[in-house]
Amino acid sequence: MTTLRWVPLSAFSRSNPALFAALCRINTLTAIKRAGSGHIGTSFSSMDIVAWLHLRVLRPDDVYFSSKGHDVPALYSILAALGRLPFEKLHELRRLGGLPGHPDVGTPGIPTNTGSLGMGISKAKGMAIANRLQRRAGHVYVLTGDGELQEGQFWESLHSAVNQKIAGITVIVDHNKIQSDTWVQDVAHLGDLDRKLESFGWHVARCNGHDFDALAHTFASLPADRPRIVIADTIKGRGVSFMEQIAPGEKLYRFHSGAPDDETYARAADELVANAERLLGGKLALETGPVPEKKRAPAVERLVPAYSKALLRAAEVEPKLVVLDADLVLDCGLIPFAEKFPDRFIECGIAEQDMVSQAGGLALRGMLPFVHSFACFLSSRPNEQIYNNATERTKIVYVGSLAGLLPGGPGHSHQCVRDISSLAAVPGLTLLEPSCEREVDLAVDWAVQGASGSVYLRLVSIPVPVPYRLPDDYRLTEGRGAALTEGSDAALVSYGPVMLTQAWHAAQELASKGLRVRVVNLPWLNRVDPAWLAGTLAGVPWLFTLDNHYVAGGQGEMLLAAAAELGLAKRALRLGVDRIPESGGNDEILGAHELDAGSLVRRILSATRSA
Amino acid sequence: MTTLRWVPLSAFSRSNPALFAALCRINTLTAIKRAGSGHIGTSFSSMDIVAWLHLRVLRPDDVYFSSKGHDVPALYSILAALGRLPFEKLHELRRLGGLPGHPDVGTPGIPTNTGSLGMGISKAKGMAIANRLQRRAGHVYVLTGDGELQEGQFWESLHSAVNQKIAGITVIVDHNKIQSDTWVQDVAHLGDLDRKLESFGWHVARCNGHDFDALAHTFASLPADRPRIVIADTIKGRGVSFMEQIAPGEKLYRFHSGAPDDETYARAADELVANAERLLGGKLALETGPVPEKKRAPAVERLVPAYSKALLRAAEVEPKLVVLDADLVLDCGLIPFAEKFPDRFIECGIAEQDMVSQAGGLALRGMLPFVHSFACFLSSRPNEQIYNNATERTKIVYVGSLAGLLPGGPGHSHQCVRDISSLAAVPGLTLLEPSCEREVDLAVDWAVQGASGSVYLRLVSIPVPVPYRLPDDYRLTEGRGAALTEGSDAALVSYGPVMLTQAWHAAQELASKGLRVRVVNLPWLNRVDPAWLAGTLAGVPWLFTLDNHYVAGGQGEMLLAAAAELGLAKRALRLGVDRIPESGGNDEILGAHELDAGSLVRRILSATRSA
Repeated sequence: MTTLRWVPLSAFSRSNPALFAALCRINTLTAIKRAGSGHIGTSFSSMDIVAWLHLRVLRPDDVYFSSKGHDVPALYSILAALGRLPFEKLHELRRLGGLPGHPDVGTPGIPTNTGSLGMGISKAKGMAIANRLQRRAGHVYVLTGDGELQEGQFWESLHSAVNQKIAGITVIVDHNKIQSDTWVQDVAHLGDLDRKLESFGWHVARCNGHDFDALAHTFASLPADRPRIVIADTIKGRGVSFMEQIAPGEKLYRFHSGAPDDETYARAADELVANAERLLGGKLALETGPVPEKKRAPAVERLVPAYSKALLRAAEVEPKLVVLDADLVLDCGLIPFAEKFPDRFIECGIAEQDMVSQAGGLALRGMLPFVHSFACFLSSRPNEQIYNNATERTKIVYVGSLAGLLPGGPGHSHQCVRDISSLAAVPGLTLLEPSCEREVDLAVDWAVQGASGSVYLRLVSIPVPVPYRLPDDYRLTEGRGAALTEGSDAALVSYGPVMLTQAWHAAQELASKGLRVRVVNLPWLNRVDPAWLAGTLAGVPWLFTLDNHYVAGGQGEMLLAAAAELGLAKRALRLGVDRIPESGGNDEILGAHELDAGSLVRRILSATRSA
Repeated sequence: MTTLRWVPLSAFSRSNPALFAALCRINTLTAIKRAGSGHIGTSFSSMDIVAWLHLRVLRPDDVYFSSKGHDVPALYSILAALGRLPFEKLHELRRLGGLPGHPDVGTPGIPTNTGSLGMGISKAKGMAIANRLQRRAGHVYVLTGDGELQEGQFWESLHSAVNQKIAGITVIVDHNKIQSDTWVQDVAHLGDLDRKLESFGWHVARCNGHDFDALAHTFASLPADRPRIVIADTIKGRGVSFMEQIAPGEKLYRFHSGAPDDETYARAADELVANAERLLGGKLALETGPVPEKKRAPAVERLVPAYSKALLRAAEVEPKLVVLDADLVLDCGLIPFAEKFPDRFIECGIAEQDMVSQAGGLALRGMLPFVHSFACFLSSRPNEQIYNNATERTKIVYVGSLAGLLPGGPGHSHQCVRDISSLAAVPGLTLLEPSCEREVDLAVDWAVQGASGSVYLRLVSIPVPVPYRLPDDYRLTEGRGAALTEGSDAALVSYGPVMLTQAWHAAQELASKGLRVRVVNLPWLNRVDPAWLAGTLAGVPWLFTLDNHYVAGGQGEMLLAAAAELGLAKRALRLGVDRIPESGGNDEILGAHELDAGSLVRRILSATRSA
């Protein structure tokens, strides 16, 4: 049986940066294994740099943060080893009340929220200007990825630093050459990076990011009067032989995100421990514990794989269909398409604005673009570009995965609970969220053949054990939904597998308490058919809505307003997310936001009894 | 008396590009003068390039468009002179059914919508890929500005063109060295632009953009197998001596937007005609017409100047207040602040994402940033950055001017009717739109002293002759408004000077028809106080809402949903913008969207009578 191993606080000393980093790698690996997810590759490529900065460079007034953010498990290990973070927190990565999956200012030692790429230098400039205005000392150090350099904001942020003579910033590029999916150079070749960065007026230096002497020498040579960039050449997954780089013969990097299985964990930990003991010249005193048991889900619905198949099927009959991706080919389910239709697959890199406007150009010239990213990024980073496309009245299908409150692990930069609001008013754009694999099929067909305008397809990425079944004769008709349970005491309208599942279970319990609730699946997020709504609400005194989204600007708001306008007044209550999402396990997060079945029962009973 | 002069279609020939461009300058100037607004400086800097492309380069399968878009009066003149646009349309610039203030695909010869900067190369890539996939001939030519190079999307779009081997694109940078407000180099120095662009892997050439031989030579030398950029050195305002460059001793360029006064028009036209006659070697046969009369408004409310003063007053008592601008220092009313507090004024350039994230860094380090741009850009380009800041729970004030449907002249890229929707769900962000100068003062005070979280201040930029007066004891209280007229047959809730003025006039007329309407100013766009709403709706059978915004996601939707939840069910109807805004004169546009007082009367009577 595999056991978890970690290095206790007492084993750390500041005297040897290489050893310090080697020990932190062990704790990082174990934290990610325990959490069940996290970013190993980038944590290991940045580890030596970040450890060295904390041991040898940073003074009390200085600020350090990672712009890419997903290497935060490495930073947590370092902060814990330095006593700047309660050490036991390392065992609570991606748990409620523990350490969020991406940096959050609520955690000691984290000065700014990151998790969506490209914002770091801009924020550092703001901090440096604030220091100057307040005559406060302190330098700002920002770590960026290299895939991150595909984001336009990175380049946008370089210009004014020079014009504004902002000297108190050092940017370190963790140049590990691999982005989420594959080699950076295969997506968007950085070319002569030194020259490129120099042409923006910054001082540029370069060194091996795993060589502490080189780091020391390079940092000592930086000029004080200009903004500086250090390109640190690193190796993704550095420290575990089989996690370094992309394996021979493979196209994709296997350790970008996610936790290793038990056997892989054990092999990796063996290597890391052996290396640390070599540096230490003796035996490490490790602490150990059991691997947390994973709940095995029963039969579940997996919407992204279902989408993957539906897309392929649609592409076979529709030659105009082209697919655009922003470095999430795996997470968005696009590998089968990319392999089958390489000419019609456009990898845009981490460049969502560019991707969306490219889709605009494609649509203007007769193609049917399907545009992909995580919902959180796709709905907001290129928000204006989506609107611009809409004003051309072309047809484009936007597909946002990882939608909604769950998974709770990655934290609020990735928990997409604002996309309905930010997209619902885009003219001609219909927002649609399927509730099961079968509805994914229907939604893709509708997007290709049924929709006259553009479509935003909102996909939950986590597998969900769905207890309901759509009616056998169910078809997608714009603005209409279907009841999943019968009841005339209240209607509870929702969408998508996560919330409908909670609603369904709540309805079972409420029925046992005498309140019969009609749970209704309405996959249309910004459309409702008046006649259907009238029928659905007929004879029902209460209308509850349940959003996998902020209450503000969600489907519920749209429904209540429509009902009011149609003269279908009911007692009504909107349920949904009402504050910035917590990070943690999925069950923890549903509970924390009072959106699990038990909370729904309590809230619905409370509302109906107090009326 | 000044008369308008223009060159008739019969005077144009394709034989002499210099003469062709000279004649088009006359027609461009006159079209802008007749319209009362438009962009002279950039139309004149790009004129020679665009004329030359149309006369000598473009083949039938090729596509040309301007990414910066505001030089479209020059393009209209050229297309009209070539017979590709009905010539008489030139007299209908910025009029309903005429030529929009920024490019729109509804106009013959316009292949894509532009008006917000930085999207052009991305779109061109999409078009080129579509050509390749469909085995269609055709090259894509894109004109960009040089200030436009501050937008991150420009740089974001360069990378993948090289990786994807997109050869069929030529970008021409209209390098006139002046952006909206001032010299590009004072905002964000482009440095060695040739080298910078080359470092992204593009072929770069450079020439004088007013020298037709140089253009011919340069274009002939471009390689066919790579994406190409031609940096064309030009002069902003080229062709009229006193419109060229920034006048000696001045900081700002005077002819970026807006129409010249009568005397300036006459002097400019004299110069342009004299130059054309010199090239022609004879007398030009010009057509003439009267300058359209301008309606003189009575006493009006001007919100941006009021904001300008209120900001200065607030900054005097609050030393943490810093101001960030994105190249709209004049339009956003920031010149007095910049002059009085140069250290606390940060000109970010046309780089909204960078600006917003800088504000995030400033706020994290104890400052109170006020962030400015046009509402259309500020609410959508940095939409994700605003959300990221919100998750840090700092306080930032965003100020979006040019908000709402009017002015109608610039077209839908600038008519901001989607910002409430795209921002309303940002946690802790309160959206607020003042209805008169007095309420601007109150709103700035509240933003600085009253608000615990961040604020989005939505400002109408056009002067409005406001017929109502806020109650003498009026104060801003979150979620509460004030009645401007009395009546118990219906409540009509709205905000801001444009719509409240129409509502007020409608109420007068409705009263004469026996329907007494309570017009209510609710400046809070995403907040409502339950007790206040209950009081406001007490005894009123009808609730009408009127949004200077899309109906979807507007204040009305929020209000109807809140009323439903509070058990305040009324017959209800939401009025507002329900399709992509038309471009035209302000009165024309209100009428076209059925939001002028007369239409409101008709729609309200129709609703109440049919009930």
